[in-house]
Amino acid sequence: MPRQKPQSAEDRLIARYFRPLANDPGAFDLLDDAAALTLPAGADLVLTTDAIVGGVHFFPDDPADQIAKKALRVNLSDLAAKGAKPLGFLLTLALPKAIAEGWLKAFAGGLGADAQAYSCPLLGGDTVRTPGPVTVSITAFGAVPRGAMVRRSGARPGDRVLVTGTIGDAALGLVQRRKASAAKRWKLDRAQHCHLAERYLLPQPRIAIAEALRRYANAAMDISDGLAGDLGKLCAASGASAVIAIERLPLSTATRKVIAAEQSQIETVITGGDDYEIVCTVAPQKLASFDAAAAAAGVAVAEIGSIVAGRAPLKFLNRDGKALRFKRPSFSHF
Amino acid sequence: MPRQKPQSAEDRLIARYFRPLANDPGAFDLLDDAAALTLPAGADLVLTTDAIVGGVHFFPDDPADQIAKKALRVNLSDLAAKGAKPLGFLLTLALPKAIAEGWLKAFAGGLGADAQAYSCPLLGGDTVRTPGPVTVSITAFGAVPRGAMVRRSGARPGDRVLVTGTIGDAALGLVQRRKASAAKRWKLDRAQHCHLAERYLLPQPRIAIAEALRRYANAAMDISDGLAGDLGKLCAASGASAVIAIERLPLSTATRKVIAAEQSQIETVITGGDDYEIVCTVAPQKLASFDAAAAAAGVAVAEIGSIVAGRAPLKFLNRDGKALRFKRPSFSHF
Repeated sequence: MPRQKPQSAEDRLIARYFRPLANDPGAFDLLDDAAALTLPAGADLVLTTDAIVGGVHFFPDDPADQIAKKALRVNLSDLAAKGAKPLGFLLTLALPKAIAEGWLKAFAGGLGADAQAYSCPLLGGDTVRTPGPVTVSITAFGAVPRGAMVRRSGARPGDRVLVTGTIGDAALGLVQRRKASAAKRWKLDRAQHCHLAERYLLPQPRIAIAEALRRYANAAMDISDGLAGDLGKLCAASGASAVIAIERLPLSTATRKVIAAEQSQIETVITGGDDYEIVCTVAPQKLASFDAAAAAAGVAVAEIGSIVAGRAPLKFLNRDGKALRFKRPSFSHF
Repeated sequence: MPRQKPQSAEDRLIARYFRPLANDPGAFDLLDDAAALTLPAGADLVLTTDAIVGGVHFFPDDPADQIAKKALRVNLSDLAAKGAKPLGFLLTLALPKAIAEGWLKAFAGGLGADAQAYSCPLLGGDTVRTPGPVTVSITAFGAVPRGAMVRRSGARPGDRVLVTGTIGDAALGLVQRRKASAAKRWKLDRAQHCHLAERYLLPQPRIAIAEALRRYANAAMDISDGLAGDLGKLCAASGASAVIAIERLPLSTATRKVIAAEQSQIETVITGGDDYEIVCTVAPQKLASFDAAAAAAGVAVAEIGSIVAGRAPLKFLNRDGKALRFKRPSFSHF
């Protein structure tokens, strides 16, 4: 009789920490090779995947529950921008040998809290060993009515450009974390300091605005690599350009204080990454309806400029109508 | 006017190597944040994800095209076992800074060849930097008629247990690659040596048998962590056990020669990983139909034993009816 181990260490880890999160019937309690999903009638599936890597997209000593939440939220942010309602997600977790049981427990705790908060259950996944850093790769699934995914490519000249929330907080939060000298120079109070730190650590996916985008926006995407770069991609996909009024950018109190102390940080605000806000374009005649729908959804939106014809580079104009020049227009890990 | 880089290095990499693979309309030429998929009417979506890590699941000096193919095929193998027809996949590629352009070109070439061969187009993905080894995470999507996914949990006492192809080649291929002394002892000829090496390097996903599984099998899964461990999981999910006749295991000429030279390698054959064959259970009255459907699909299947009632550990019986004892019953990276 073979002395079978009833469960490998991997099975035990999955059973203990991840099975409780897999409460969708299609997840089969994580006891199968695959998950099954029945889509709502007349729906298209929307698919997105984003990975975060220790030492690249997060600090290795970030709290494990926040890492898990960030990994899920960057994907939920994409679903929101596409107008999709979350259906569930798959998790691939590459773990170094030295990972502690407590880390995993906290990771699963954070993931489970967000899965519940955003009605996006864990459907399955894979855990692997790596000699490298912790890597969390999530694939998220959402539904839209057939053909209704909000694209990057739908922007038309004359559309207004809008963004959700506030811009630049996360990028300044990262600068502040990397350079204590910067934080000192900016003279932020404790609340302002924490606001920027939090905004870097934990995105707020704007899923509440998904339906308004689907009904009223011509184009949308989430801002992960900086407003300038991502709006540039949206414009390129739409065969158009945009003119943005810098003074109309929605900024937090903390960010306003940073810019007052060090004007050149406006470039960080416009080109830095990790906003996870949504930039979208709306035809003028739909603007009032969009604003009302966003307000009803509890998501702040600000009109910051317009789409213009042609393929010229984007213009970010200051109060005097002069275009800002950037040293490094878009964030890229490459 | 901001001096915008029209494309980041990441965008260029995607455009050059991966856009040509994304020929499904729902991939939007990889120019959006997400992909969209319309399922066939009345179908369920089947979702699976598997990652492979350099130095863990493949050797860092394996050819890049083979690494890409392996990453896709281990996922196609899961879809096949679940009775699903491939629809497409998402790729997350974590790359060290030092990766050469030629490596990427070869990787994309291999991936594209298999995407075409298995009618499973690239739908989207994410590329990230890592200070660790190359990590390839693929999420694959397939379709089954509603409710028809073949589960692990459907095995019933009296079912026959069958496997596709041959068992143990890949695990012996790995031993042979790690220990030159073993290969010498086994005295394989060149063709036999290459057969084992190839079987480790490149799985053959049995997608041709998916429909036969859906029509006739009570339970199925793919064998990635060794026959003993994976059949054990299938039995555990089904609340049953199995008795297997070792002499009925389908073995290649090379594997037979290894066992003739070193009898203890039968344990490697039964418990080693990376077979990527399918183990399934079929009720006796459906066996003839299943065999005929497998033959029509061009996939060799062998009956190796039966499902029995109870939750006792699996039995692997030798010619004398004695049960084999294993030192290490299932492969695990953990």
